[in-house]
Amino acid sequence: MKTSGNFSETGLAVIPANPTNFPGLNTLGMSFARTDIEVGGINPPHFHPRATELIHVIQGKVYAGFVDSNNKVFARILEQGEVMVFPRGLVHFMMNVGDEDVTLFGSFNSQNPGLQKIPSAVFGSGIDEELLQKAFGLSSKQIGTMKRKLDPKQER
Amino acid sequence: MKTSGNFSETGLAVIPANPTNFPGLNTLGMSFARTDIEVGGINPPHFHPRATELIHVIQGKVYAGFVDSNNKVFARILEQGEVMVFPRGLVHFMMNVGDEDVTLFGSFNSQNPGLQKIPSAVFGSGIDEELLQKAFGLSSKQIGTMKRKLDPKQER
Amino acid sequence: MKTSGNFSETGLAVIPANPTNFPGLNTLGMSFARTDIEVGGINPPHFHPRATELIHVIQGKVYAGFVDSNNKVFARILEQGEVMVFPRGLVHFMMNVGDEDVTLFGSFNSQNPGLQKIPSAVFGSGIDEELLQKAFGLSSKQIGTMKRKLDPKQER
Amino acid sequence: MKTSGNFSETGLAVIPANPTNFPGLNTLGMSFARTDIEVGGINPPHFHPRATELIHVIQGKVYAGFVDSNNKVFARILEQGEVMVFPRGLVHFMMNVGDEDVTLFGSFNSQNPGLQKIPSAVFGSGIDEELLQKAFGLSSKQIGTMKRKLDPKQER
Amino acid sequence: MKTSGNFSETGLAVIPANPTNFPGLNTLGMSFARTDIEVGGINPPHFHPRATELIHVIQGKVYAGFVDSNNKVFARILEQGEVMVFPRGLVHFMMNVGDEDVTLFGSFNSQNPGLQKIPSAVFGSGIDEELLQKAFGLSSKQIGTMKRKLDPKQER
Amino acid sequence: MKTSGNFSETGLAVIPANPTNFPGLNTLGMSFARTDIEVGGINPPHFHPRATELIHVIQGKVYAGFVDSNNKVFARILEQGEVMVFPRGLVHFMMNVGDEDVTLFGSFNSQNPGLQKIPSAVFGSGIDEELLQKAFGLSSKQIGTMKRKLDPKQER
Repeated sequence: MKTSGNFSETGLAVIPANPTNFPGLNTLGMSFARTDIEVGGINPPHFHPRATELIHVIQGKVYAGFVDSNNKVFARILEQGEVMVFPRGLVHFMMNVGDEDVTLFGSFNSQNPGLQKIPSAVFGSGIDEELLQKAFGLSSKQIGTMKRKLDPKQER
Repeated sequence: MKTSGNFSETGLAVIPANPTNFPGLNTLGMSFARTDIEVGGINPPHFHPRATELIHVIQGKVYAGFVDSNNKVFARILEQGEVMVFPRGLVHFMMNVGDEDVTLFGSFNSQNPGLQKIPSAVFGSGIDEELLQKAFGLSSKQIGTMKRKLDPKQER
Repeated sequence: MKTSGNFSETGLAVIPANPTNFPGLNTLGMSFARTDIEVGGINPPHFHPRATELIHVIQGKVYAGFVDSNNKVFARILEQGEVMVFPRGLVHFMMNVGDEDVTLFGSFNSQNPGLQKIPSAVFGSGIDEELLQKAFGLSSKQIGTMKRKLDPKQER
Repeated sequence: MKTSGNFSETGLAVIPANPTNFPGLNTLGMSFARTDIEVGGINPPHFHPRATELIHVIQGKVYAGFVDSNNKVFARILEQGEVMVFPRGLVHFMMNVGDEDVTLFGSFNSQNPGLQKIPSAVFGSGIDEELLQKAFGLSSKQIGTMKRKLDPKQER
Repeated sequence: MKTSGNFSETGLAVIPANPTNFPGLNTLGMSFARTDIEVGGINPPHFHPRATELIHVIQGKVYAGFVDSNNKVFARILEQGEVMVFPRGLVHFMMNVGDEDVTLFGSFNSQNPGLQKIPSAVFGSGIDEELLQKAFGLSSKQIGTMKRKLDPKQER
Repeated sequence: MKTSGNFSETGLAVIPANPTNFPGLNTLGMSFARTDIEVGGINPPHFHPRATELIHVIQGKVYAGFVDSNNKVFARILEQGEVMVFPRGLVHFMMNVGDEDVTLFGSFNSQNPGLQKIPSAVFGSGIDEELLQKAFGLSSKQIGTMKRKLDPKQER
C-alpha cells in the first residue's frame, strides 16, 4: 500500500486488499483498498453490493459523492484528512479536482464488498441492446459506440 | 394486488408493498411488489441495495436477467409459472417479449429493499456533468439529452 | 413450477425449491414453494423454524391463518392476487374453501426454512405416549389411533 | 429464582425472566427461565420461534427431548448436572420420571424467545374446527372435548 | 458436568463445553461451562470477545461483577439460585466470599465465545516490556515479577 | 480530522468519530478515529467489545500488535502506508518507536465499538482490592499505587 497501482484510461488506480492477498482479514468483517486518481481523472459511478465504504483522503482534492434512495446526490469537495461514508449498495463516484494526484484509503465493513461499475456493468456486459435503447433513450448507433468503449476487457 | 398500477413511459407499472401500506410486514424481514409490463415495455436496469428479489411470472413472456460481480449477464426468457432470483445489490432488468401484458410477483428478503434505477440515478440525479462525460465517453450534448429525458420528476 | 405435485391424503401437493434442486438460490437468503390444495383439502397446522413465509394466491379461494405469540388466531379467506405473511416460527394452516383447486406461491427469507407439521411431529415421531396423553387429555386408545393415522411413512 | 412458581394442572411451574422483569437483559441477546415439574408432571410439547434453549438440571430426573426437521425424536433421561440443547424453533417436551420435583434452569440466546404450546396453540386458539378434524383425523366430538380442556384461560 | 474440574493456583476450576467435546452444540449459537471456586479463590478479570454470558449460582456465595463502557463497576454478592449477566466483551470477575465451594453454571450466546484473561493476556503474552511499564506505571522489576508469575504455562 | 486532539500523560491523542459528532454514520455499520502518538508515547492495552478495527499509518513508525485467543502476541513495526487489523474484542496496543509523531487512521465495523482500557478498567474502576491482589500477585501497597495512578478522572 506504499505506492499506487497502474492507472486506467480514466486516470484511476485501485489496489484492493482482501483475504486472498491479505489473509489476516479472513472472517473479521473488514477489507480495504488504496485508490489513486490522476489530475482530472475519475472513479466512475459504481457501488459495492455488500458493504458500506469509508474513505479517508491522504492527499489531494477530490469531488466525491453518492446518490441516495430518493435519487438525490450528496457530493462535496474533500481535502487531505477529510472523510466521507458511502452507504452499502448506493452508487458513488469521485473526480480529482485539484492539481496533484489524489490518494484515498477506503475501508469496508465486509471482507467481500463486491463491485459493480455502472458504465461497464450496463453497457459492457451484454444486456440486450433494444432494452438499453429504451432505458436510456439512445439510438442504436450511440449504444454501439458506448458498448465498444466500455468493453470489459479494457476495464479492471 | 388484484389490478396493475399506472404505466410509465417505458410501459412499466409497479405496486410495491411495504410496512407503510401493508403494516403486517413490519419486523418480519420480507416485502413484495406487483409488476406489470406492457408489450414491448421494459423495466430498466436497477438494483435493490438491501435485498435479494425472487420473481414469479403470473402471466406473459419476459426477458429477464442480472449482471454478476464479474460483469457477466445471466438472462433468459421466462414464461408463466417460472421463477428467477436476483442476488442482493446486483443490477437486473426485464423486457416484455411476448404479445400480452406481463404480470410478475416479486418478493424481497427485507422490509425495506431500496431501489436505484440506473438511468435516473446516474443521469437524472445531478452528478457533475464532466464526470459523466468521462465515465461514459459521451459528448456534453449527448449527456444533456439524457439528463432531460431522465429527469426524475417523470420517473417513479 | 408449471404443474402441481402429487396430492396427499389431505388434498395437499407441495413442490419446494431449495439450493439442491434450484442451485441458483445458494447463499442468497431466499427459497420458495408451489402449493396446490384440492377442493375441501387442507394444509395442516405447521411452521417453519427458520423463515418468514409470504404467500400469494394464484388461483382459488383459501381460508388461511396463523397463531400469534399470545395464542390468538389471525385468519381470513384469501382470493386470487391476495397476499398473507406468516411470521418466522409461528404455526399456520390453510383450507380450500372454494370450488376449484387452490394454487399458491410461497416465498421464504431463508434458503433452508425447515418444516414441522404439528400432527406428524407430535403424534408420528415417537414422543412418549404417556406424555402425549397428559398433554392432550386423550385416552391411550385415542392416542394410538392418531399415531397409526399419522405414521410419518404416509406423510411427506 | 430461589423458589418455584405456581404449578399448572399438568404439574408445571415456569418463571421466565426477560427485559421487563429483569431489565439488565435488554439488548444483550439472552434471557432465562426457571422450570419446576412435579412428580409425574409434564412440560407439554412446545417451541420457541426465536431462540435456541439450553437446559441444566438442578434437581430430579427428567425425560426430555425434541423433534428434529426429519420428524425424528431425540430424547433421553437427564439427571442432576446434565445438560440438553433444543435448537431454535424445534418442538420439545419434558416429563418428570423421578420421585422428587424436577428443577431446571433454561437459558435462551434471544431476549424474546417467544413460546407456542402445541396443545393450546392448536386446539385452544380458534382454528376452524373442520380443518382440525381433517388434520388430526378426530371426530367433531373429540375435537370439542380437547378445545374445552385446552381453553387458554386455564393455561398460562 | 457432575463434578468440578481441577483447581488452579487461584482456586478456580472451569469445564467449558463447546462443539468439540459436546457436538450437539454445533451451529446452534450457544455453549456453556461449569465453574467451581474454592473458599477465598477467584476467577480473575477476563472477558469473552464474542459472547454475552449468563451465570446461575448452583451453590455458595460469590462476589461477581463487570466493568461497563464508562469504566464503572457493577458488582454484588450472589447466592444460590441468583443470576447475573455479563454483556459481550466486557471485563468481569468473581471471588468466593462464602465458607463453602462456589459452583456456577454459565451459558453463552455463541458456540465459540473466546477468552482473554487480563493478567495473563497482558503480562504473560509477550507485549513489549517498556510499553507495559508506561501503561501501568510499574518499574521494570515489578513488571518482571508479574511476568514470571503470570507465565501462561501455569494458567489454563 | 485535520489536526490531532490533546495529548494525554502517556503521549496519546484520540479523536473518535461516531453518530453523535458525525451524524452521517448513523445505521451504516461503521465509525472511525484519528490517533496521534508522541515520540516514545503509547496507546495502552485496550480493546473494543463490539468491533474489528483496521489501522492505516499516515505518518511515523509504530510498534503495534494484539493478543490472540491463545494468549499469543502478534506485533510488528508499521511504517507509513501500512495496515494492521485488530479482531473484534481482542486486546491491542501501540508505541511510537520512531523519531516523529505517529498519526493513524482507524476504522471500525460498528457505529458503536465501545472501549475498555486495561489499566484503568481493571485498576481504576473499583474492583475489590483483595481480588486484584490475588489476580495479579501484587501487594496491597502496589495495588494502591496503581489505583491512584490510574484514577479514571485523569484518563480519557
